[in-house]
Amino acid sequence: MNCSRSLKLHKKFRGKLEIKSKFEIKTREDLSMAYTPCVAEVSSAIAKDKSLVKEYTIKKNTVAVVSDGSAVLGLGNIGAEAAIPVMEGKAILFKELANVDAFPICLATQDSEEIISIVKNIAPVFGGINLEDISAPNCFYIEEKLQDIGIPVMHDDQHGTAIVVVAALLNALKVLKRNVQKIKVVVVGAGAAGIAITKMISRELQIDDIIVCDSKGIISKNRRDLNPIKENLLSFTNKNNRNGTMEKALVGSDVFIGVSTGGILNTEMVKTMNKDSIVFAMANPIPEIMPDDAKKGGAAIVGSGRSDFPNQINNVLAFPGIFRGLLDGNITKVTSEIKINAARALADYVKKPTAEKILPNPLDRGVAKVIAQSITRIK
Amino acid sequence: MNCSRSLKLHKKFRGKLEIKSKFEIKTREDLSMAYTPCVAEVSSAIAKDKSLVKEYTIKKNTVAVVSDGSAVLGLGNIGAEAAIPVMEGKAILFKELANVDAFPICLATQDSEEIISIVKNIAPVFGGINLEDISAPNCFYIEEKLQDIGIPVMHDDQHGTAIVVVAALLNALKVLKRNVQKIKVVVVGAGAAGIAITKMISRELQIDDIIVCDSKGIISKNRRDLNPIKENLLSFTNKNNRNGTMEKALVGSDVFIGVSTGGILNTEMVKTMNKDSIVFAMANPIPEIMPDDAKKGGAAIVGSGRSDFPNQINNVLAFPGIFRGLLDGNITKVTSEIKINAARALADYVKKPTAEKILPNPLDRGVAKVIAQSITRIK
Repeated sequence: MNCSRSLKLHKKFRGKLEIKSKFEIKTREDLSMAYTPCVAEVSSAIAKDKSLVKEYTIKKNTVAVVSDGSAVLGLGNIGAEAAIPVMEGKAILFKELANVDAFPICLATQDSEEIISIVKNIAPVFGGINLEDISAPNCFYIEEKLQDIGIPVMHDDQHGTAIVVVAALLNALKVLKRNVQKIKVVVVGAGAAGIAITKMISRELQIDDIIVCDSKGIISKNRRDLNPIKENLLSFTNKNNRNGTMEKALVGSDVFIGVSTGGILNTEMVKTMNKDSIVFAMANPIPEIMPDDAKKGGAAIVGSGRSDFPNQINNVLAFPGIFRGLLDGNITKVTSEIKINAARALADYVKKPTAEKILPNPLDRGVAKVIAQSITRIK
Repeated sequence: MNCSRSLKLHKKFRGKLEIKSKFEIKTREDLSMAYTPCVAEVSSAIAKDKSLVKEYTIKKNTVAVVSDGSAVLGLGNIGAEAAIPVMEGKAILFKELANVDAFPICLATQDSEEIISIVKNIAPVFGGINLEDISAPNCFYIEEKLQDIGIPVMHDDQHGTAIVVVAALLNALKVLKRNVQKIKVVVVGAGAAGIAITKMISRELQIDDIIVCDSKGIISKNRRDLNPIKENLLSFTNKNNRNGTMEKALVGSDVFIGVSTGGILNTEMVKTMNKDSIVFAMANPIPEIMPDDAKKGGAAIVGSGRSDFPNQINNVLAFPGIFRGLLDGNITKVTSEIKINAARALADYVKKPTAEKILPNPLDRGVAKVIAQSITRIK
């Protein structure tokens, strides 16, 4: 894709978002209402009753998109400044797709304890925090430590991805008329997305037969080099203790979920999977396998992260509606129930899924609405 | 003033600002330009050359309004949540009066070292930092320590106030055809504003005869209870070592600059000042003396912080134009030269000052323009 127009637009506008005042500032009276002296009464009211902060301020509708620039898209650790365009992008999608006001916060530190402390200390203005592009395994620790600060904190690369993948999987199985609990799944990539997907399909869909692979191959009891997060996977994956390469894992499997690196899967490997396999190749921008090559290997349903093929599996289908629901529901913490409900609402939004359409169009403003409702409904 | 309409507006709009996307998000191509895959190229460009961050992102035009809620208006230490409406107010004035995008950041901590660290770490997205409503004496230390972080950091309660007071004083003296260096000034209030005003009139206007008072009276060598900031004043104020009350200080003075508490000055005290005195009573919302009472005491020119009297002396005349200039000029630090130039530009904007008009209308969009030009012109 030719991105020169994108660079030109970013330069022309100097970034993708701006602030807009909701109050008119035309007369001295306007000034008095928005600023001194009357703003003192608003502050005074909140000082007496802190719960009024959601009645009188932007906290009711505002989310911070927080990154340390350590794992940005396919670019890796590019740091805070270089991460800004991605965080701005998320912010405008929050606004355009779900009317959530979102502001990018890019941190100059990559120290987990500092990140945790900063997020806690900037929390007063925000109704929620979307952590983004923070590398594994730090991201797991950071998100965990921020679970009880009074506002919901969600790492989108983990849970947004998992929610969309689960929705895609549910509809793919519906199209193929397959029983979700009987399928054999191989998850390739054990970073933020891979870990979250594996946990969610195990816990919420009760999928029993899961093998997870990282860059060194199958994650099994025999591996000596597993960090605690990967170690933990062993309690609910690879129950037959398979060992070896990703290739070996794929033999006789039904579903390939790729959240790793481009080009690691080929047509021959797909042929060793079961008939009518499902292949989700989400590495960005170059997928693990190009959709056409997966189909040549016998895949019945193929998804990727790319917008130029059917079945684009992209977090943009989830995060706007999720935070819309969290803010509307005054929810203080993202629960498992919230996540699976969102995934089912997203899947059900496609009334009659087909092999070429297992997910909605990301620009369909109805998606965020139904996901938000799935969250506020259960309060 | 009846502020019930203000409360209603804050509730109706849930705060005073929102985010607005500069990019359209209507088609898949729009999505590709603003988000994946093309945003990766923008991030990649900045990763290779960090200076491009001001070409491609909001950093070029965005300022953080940072407070810990420890000294908000006349309300004191009300904390982060209660401070939000004031910081939102500043943000929308930045936007409306100078097209500066400003976002409120209210911190849950009041520890100076933590505040310094947080500001350094959130700096990547911002082109400047406006510190606000942080109590003295912490505010001096915090601002000082943030002077070399690559973007300008200014505590508006100190320098914005000083700039507007200096502009008001220059025009008042012009009206009265008085020589600035021969006047005797009494500054009442030795917090953020009082300290900054005193330093600026001494250094930039070479006013020699200054007495500063705090709540305990005249700051003199005989006092045993002075913090280091107040101690430092002695090297350039109260050269005749006067001692005692504010009342004593006022006898035979020309200018009263009040940045303290309501009601501490009365007509009788003003009568003891020299003929055609200047009284700036800026305590908010109740001034040190009501303007009419000051005039009864013989004051020739009276200013206050209130919008319902002539000569409103309010920081809103300074901060929008200052940051407009800092951002346009890619300036990394606020210097003394920048401050006095801004003050003179503000004063000169009133072509023919009179006793009832020593400052421009805060809603005059031309004010921010000339102040910004005074900054970019000297680069």
